[in-house]
Amino acid sequence: MINVAEIGAESGVQSTGPLSTEELRLIDAYWRAANYLAVGQIYLLDNPLLTEPLRAEHIKPRLLGHWGTTPGLNLIYAHMNRVIRRNDLDAIYVIGPGHGGPGIVANTYLEGTYSEIYPSVTQDREGLRRLFRQFSFPGGIPSHVAPEVPGSIHEGGELGYALTHAYGAAFDNPGLVVAAVVGDGEAETGPLAASWHSNKFLDPVRDGAVLPILHLNGYKIAQPTILARIPESELDALMRGYGYEPLHVTGDDPADVHQQFARVLDTAVSRIFDIQDRARRGGDSSRPVWPMIVLRTPKGWTGPSTVDGRPVEGNWRSHQVPIAELHNNPEHLALLESWLRSYRPWELFDADGRLVPELAALAPVGTRRMSANPHANGGELLRDLTLPDFRDYAVDVPQPGVGSNEATRVLGGFLRDVMRSNPNTFRVMGPDETASNRLGALFETTSRAWNAETVPTDEDLAPDGRVMEVLSEHLCQGWLEGYLLTGRHGFFSCYEAFIHIVDSMVNQHAKWLKATRHIPWRRPIASLNYLLTSHVWRQDHNGFSHQDPGFIDHVVNKKAEIIRVYLPPDANTLLSVADHCLRSRHYINVIVAGKQPALNYLPMSDAIAHCTRGLGIWDWASNDHTEDGDGTPDVVMACAGDIPTLETLAAVDILRQNFPELKVRVVNVVDLMCLQAEAEHPHGMSDARFDALFTEDRPIIFAYHGYPWLIHRLTYRRRNHGNLHVRGYIEEGTTTTPFDMVMMNNLDRFHLVVDVIDRVASLGARAAHVRQRMIDARLAARAYTRDHGEDDPRIRDWTWPY
Amino acid sequence: MINVAEIGAESGVQSTGPLSTEELRLIDAYWRAANYLAVGQIYLLDNPLLTEPLRAEHIKPRLLGHWGTTPGLNLIYAHMNRVIRRNDLDAIYVIGPGHGGPGIVANTYLEGTYSEIYPSVTQDREGLRRLFRQFSFPGGIPSHVAPEVPGSIHEGGELGYALTHAYGAAFDNPGLVVAAVVGDGEAETGPLAASWHSNKFLDPVRDGAVLPILHLNGYKIAQPTILARIPESELDALMRGYGYEPLHVTGDDPADVHQQFARVLDTAVSRIFDIQDRARRGGDSSRPVWPMIVLRTPKGWTGPSTVDGRPVEGNWRSHQVPIAELHNNPEHLALLESWLRSYRPWELFDADGRLVPELAALAPVGTRRMSANPHANGGELLRDLTLPDFRDYAVDVPQPGVGSNEATRVLGGFLRDVMRSNPNTFRVMGPDETASNRLGALFETTSRAWNAETVPTDEDLAPDGRVMEVLSEHLCQGWLEGYLLTGRHGFFSCYEAFIHIVDSMVNQHAKWLKATRHIPWRRPIASLNYLLTSHVWRQDHNGFSHQDPGFIDHVVNKKAEIIRVYLPPDANTLLSVADHCLRSRHYINVIVAGKQPALNYLPMSDAIAHCTRGLGIWDWASNDHTEDGDGTPDVVMACAGDIPTLETLAAVDILRQNFPELKVRVVNVVDLMCLQAEAEHPHGMSDARFDALFTEDRPIIFAYHGYPWLIHRLTYRRRNHGNLHVRGYIEEGTTTTPFDMVMMNNLDRFHLVVDVIDRVASLGARAAHVRQRMIDARLAARAYTRDHGEDDPRIRDWTWPY
Repeated sequence: MINVAEIGAESGVQSTGPLSTEELRLIDAYWRAANYLAVGQIYLLDNPLLTEPLRAEHIKPRLLGHWGTTPGLNLIYAHMNRVIRRNDLDAIYVIGPGHGGPGIVANTYLEGTYSEIYPSVTQDREGLRRLFRQFSFPGGIPSHVAPEVPGSIHEGGELGYALTHAYGAAFDNPGLVVAAVVGDGEAETGPLAASWHSNKFLDPVRDGAVLPILHLNGYKIAQPTILARIPESELDALMRGYGYEPLHVTGDDPADVHQQFARVLDTAVSRIFDIQDRARRGGDSSRPVWPMIVLRTPKGWTGPSTVDGRPVEGNWRSHQVPIAELHNNPEHLALLESWLRSYRPWELFDADGRLVPELAALAPVGTRRMSANPHANGGELLRDLTLPDFRDYAVDVPQPGVGSNEATRVLGGFLRDVMRSNPNTFRVMGPDETASNRLGALFETTSRAWNAETVPTDEDLAPDGRVMEVLSEHLCQGWLEGYLLTGRHGFFSCYEAFIHIVDSMVNQHAKWLKATRHIPWRRPIASLNYLLTSHVWRQDHNGFSHQDPGFIDHVVNKKAEIIRVYLPPDANTLLSVADHCLRSRHYINVIVAGKQPALNYLPMSDAIAHCTRGLGIWDWASNDHTEDGDGTPDVVMACAGDIPTLETLAAVDILRQNFPELKVRVVNVVDLMCLQAEAEHPHGMSDARFDALFTEDRPIIFAYHGYPWLIHRLTYRRRNHGNLHVRGYIEEGTTTTPFDMVMMNNLDRFHLVVDVIDRVASLGARAAHVRQRMIDARLAARAYTRDHGEDDPRIRDWTWPY
Repeated sequence: MINVAEIGAESGVQSTGPLSTEELRLIDAYWRAANYLAVGQIYLLDNPLLTEPLRAEHIKPRLLGHWGTTPGLNLIYAHMNRVIRRNDLDAIYVIGPGHGGPGIVANTYLEGTYSEIYPSVTQDREGLRRLFRQFSFPGGIPSHVAPEVPGSIHEGGELGYALTHAYGAAFDNPGLVVAAVVGDGEAETGPLAASWHSNKFLDPVRDGAVLPILHLNGYKIAQPTILARIPESELDALMRGYGYEPLHVTGDDPADVHQQFARVLDTAVSRIFDIQDRARRGGDSSRPVWPMIVLRTPKGWTGPSTVDGRPVEGNWRSHQVPIAELHNNPEHLALLESWLRSYRPWELFDADGRLVPELAALAPVGTRRMSANPHANGGELLRDLTLPDFRDYAVDVPQPGVGSNEATRVLGGFLRDVMRSNPNTFRVMGPDETASNRLGALFETTSRAWNAETVPTDEDLAPDGRVMEVLSEHLCQGWLEGYLLTGRHGFFSCYEAFIHIVDSMVNQHAKWLKATRHIPWRRPIASLNYLLTSHVWRQDHNGFSHQDPGFIDHVVNKKAEIIRVYLPPDANTLLSVADHCLRSRHYINVIVAGKQPALNYLPMSDAIAHCTRGLGIWDWASNDHTEDGDGTPDVVMACAGDIPTLETLAAVDILRQNFPELKVRVVNVVDLMCLQAEAEHPHGMSDARFDALFTEDRPIIFAYHGYPWLIHRLTYRRRNHGNLHVRGYIEEGTTTTPFDMVMMNNLDRFHLVVDVIDRVASLGARAAHVRQRMIDARLAARAYTRDHGEDDPRIRDWTWPY
């Protein structure tokens, strides 16, 4: 415990300054207090101050928690407190090794925030007992840095996103310093490896600072880490190659490391101030070389050096619980007791269990405490966007299904003015596709964020740009999460197929949103809004590898209370949906809309009504309410998504021409979650409403944008589910034309007509003949495509003729 | 076109050597030929040799394809051909910028492979016409480097995986050199940024060489790339930091760049030979600093320098089709013609359209051609694994549901001997979890691959280790894909929640498998086998952030013909399933199995029979075949997954005790795809069989491992679907105990009993009483957990009592 292993000893030259002897004594004591509380949380049910000899019944029955990373996290916390006080810094702490929960909880407790938020965990002996007991205990708190931990915007769990979250927090927050610890395990992940380059997107004038701290404790769960096992010269080159000035701290002697780290942190803060001053007052617009810290200390530092003869401190064995089997191994129990006592808790806490005043005075006060900084509870800072009236961007639709627009280009005009009206609280992310996705109007009011080199032919690049483009969906997602979690708004446009790259990040964010709904002091944040365009049906030119509509399936597995999926069929509905999403809170909104020219169906007033309902009958396209009819259709033609809507209407046209007596009802679905039952989703509809729309017994031919089984999954309890036939993407694609794509997947107008013929018995003698004509039409369309390399214009240019 | 822009001109000093004037003339002509064919593919329907003036009707109606990256890819191809011939290299080419399809197709055509595989595309004028016409044309070939392209193991599409595929191909292939082009767009992705570190996992003795070529053409779709816009000193430091020796080539003058690139490529090959020689003969076991090349040439090099007054060559505007609107803009048509003629096709092809002999002679011959190298058609090299008899690893099960094992530890013994018996064709991947997942027996026969620094306390690390551990699921997945695609076998064990990190990579691989099933010359490869352990039900200690069973949902969206999902309930079934998966071909097999001690149910002979059927009635657990009964149960208790099986059997126990007259049938499902209809999946079962197992009208209570709606999605067309009630994970989790986890999601034994009581009308007066007892039991279990921090041992230690 005290005699630490010799790791890093080669550089253990005794440092002097900047801490005075007294400062050193105090900061080390504060660190010991945090370490003590961390070990206590992992192990103790009772006897929190070791006022009596440690006995087996004081120990938790199941030992859970991660010790290895904790002393390093605590060291950084204590030293950040010092520079915050010294410089009156507005700082938050992003903890990549989020499994180090006991350390962060300990620190938030030491500075008082924890007890303010959770009053039962008082700053006394009983509070200590509760603090220890609740950790990783049923009914208590998670073992990782979960949303329950004040000051956190970054959940422990899946690794790799610490730096992107940190940069996201810093954008448009010029006064903020984000200290971001990157574990050397996490540093092996792809997203983290790419996110060092975020410094090319940070403006020293407009944005705050990120201080990355690469914590090399040398080991993952069961083996060494890459970055700890390359020569220091290589690591140094790597960090310089990423564009940082690395400041190294290496050691295992606490006094020495305190001095080294204090010096380096002072240097880093002064570098940050200098950079910001040069840029803000000196007008230096070149990309700065920001500082970063390499902190090399033993894993499980100050823990037991060996257990049962095997190395633990400075080894992967200290990753989780270093000493186990305490209930039946007295030696282990004694080892734990001496480990705990090595922190000398009697010097740190008074007899009542309260942190002694000279240590309590080391923490910053009020919102300067990293655990109480409002940036880490973004909902507190969140203000509504100033939104222009989306109706002002409406396209004129004198007649449904005749004129056309690129829906996302129309949206682009609206987003431009959202950007203009919210110059500090709104960003748009996308992997190099903003212009390609027809959102180029944004560049009339801002640029792409870019702080790397430029050449004269460059366009729309600027350090203070607020469109964030990088060929990494991970970075886009992580930046946006960081931006939202600190109380701002955003919009992420992406190719539909490749948004799967961030599936796992979406999981984490969805879990954060779900968990924080039940944490009263966490205020709701802005929704995470996706626009998925360049979607599956319009990747005919890029081919099979670019076709996948499964992100919708992925998100609907998340908790219903935070998931929304919208499939606006045209430009005006897209505007209405986008406006709604930008106003919403604490959701993940997925909007799927095409960027190619496509027919308009609804004037704005109708679009608003339709989107508000979520789905509805399109009377203008239906003929089931005839004067002599009973209002019950022979078939329901349902559709969700722009291309399925087009094919459905074209099929209805064919049906009307060939079977004028057939009563067809067209139902269009914008808000996919409406299909679910009321009990399953807040937007879900009642069975009565479902029956009224989809009938109780008539065939439903449902043309859907994505994998067809999702519609079944959403509706399998409905009365008329047995008559529901869904067409969608069935993983058949290649490089071809748009109409060939829908044919390959049986979603085309001709096949939809066949589906109707096969399911409506009353069509009479003509049915077989028309059916054959449909099959012939498919063959002819395919032949045309093969011969001409493009779609038959009679199909491509179809418009609604009624 | 010829007067290229001045990009990079500052370093355009005329180089001399190593190419003689004649060699230079020839290699440049070869390059021109490839460039000409690439432009021809993008634009031309006819007039392939420009034997007549170019007219609008020679031009394709839709212009699709990517020009920008193509000249660089072609340059590398031509020069690789030279060093292959010079050194008799066994080399393949992994193309990160896979949208450069026209260039790669051009090269495979120039060296004859294309016509051998696709005989209609002959090496003459008509063949050229077909080659051009088919490209990115309906019924033709995709625009990217798709599976249809000979020599490719790496599909164009989602970017980021070139280097991992290249390293995967090189593992255990000591004679192979893998040239891997990384585009500077791709280089921004997370997976690529991490994969440079693959050099710490490559053994210069056992493995082949990877030669990364970072191609800086400066631009993505619409803006510059990061790595092209940092100082060369930073880029150089970055590559040295990654552990490489960067060799730089910069220029825009073809003759100069040819000389520079030839020299650098010679240097790289000689470095590779030196490194391998030092390691293989000199016994130098230190990690070598492998060479890599930075090639900085203009985007769209040799294309039009400006179009309509805007810069194109050396600009992002050359990314796709540089000149559009050819049918109604005569100036554009003239520009295209002069561009095509700038390659002087009359010098390259004879009047019949055949490549002139002096150029044809530049290509390697036979399988030395990169397009004909069998490593790039792995199925050709694939040999069955030598498998020990999995029955030898069986655990003894004298009685069902009494004894227990850690199933994955049992599997570990089998995998150890698979590894031992296949020392050059089998690897196991995992993100630092092999031991944690109880597969540690592998280390009895091999080590973790590790070529970075070591310290004396390290265990199970060696340069020639064949367990690949890195804290990046992306790297594990990419390495394994590369390994499988080059004809070997593997196994990937992962935490269930975090396998979502590779969702998008799985999509790409699944699409490759689906596409190659229909390409006759592509031979089937070994299946990609996942073991998902540390699964959702046993992440009670890590908490909500580690709980997600949705990967199953993700994979079942892929084409049924290549997807298999197995949920073995115990150790012997896991062995049987694993053996089956290791023998299979061309599938993605997902196995979900726990690593914690769990009850054994089936002796090996029964396990084999059960797994062969995929699902079946467990007679020993059922009482519906009583002597006086009619064989029809009152309720079907179905289960899939180890924890659901346990809870189901415990519920059956309670039901039997309380309702001895109730006829209960237990159906266990191992092979999830059996639930689908025959028409939907090759493993799907008939309606008759489904009815026989699940009855036509009795309640089915289905306890399922994952999200419950998946079971509905698989069975919604079945007759008895209306009586199906599924319990599974409903996104409710936290840090707690295993039994509390199942209670939070209503999957626990008590809730299953309630489900039965609520759905079986015939239970009589006792039902209400028992129902209340179940609710009380849940409350008591929760209270026990909260008080003791662990599960009530009476629940935890339950065994099957009959």
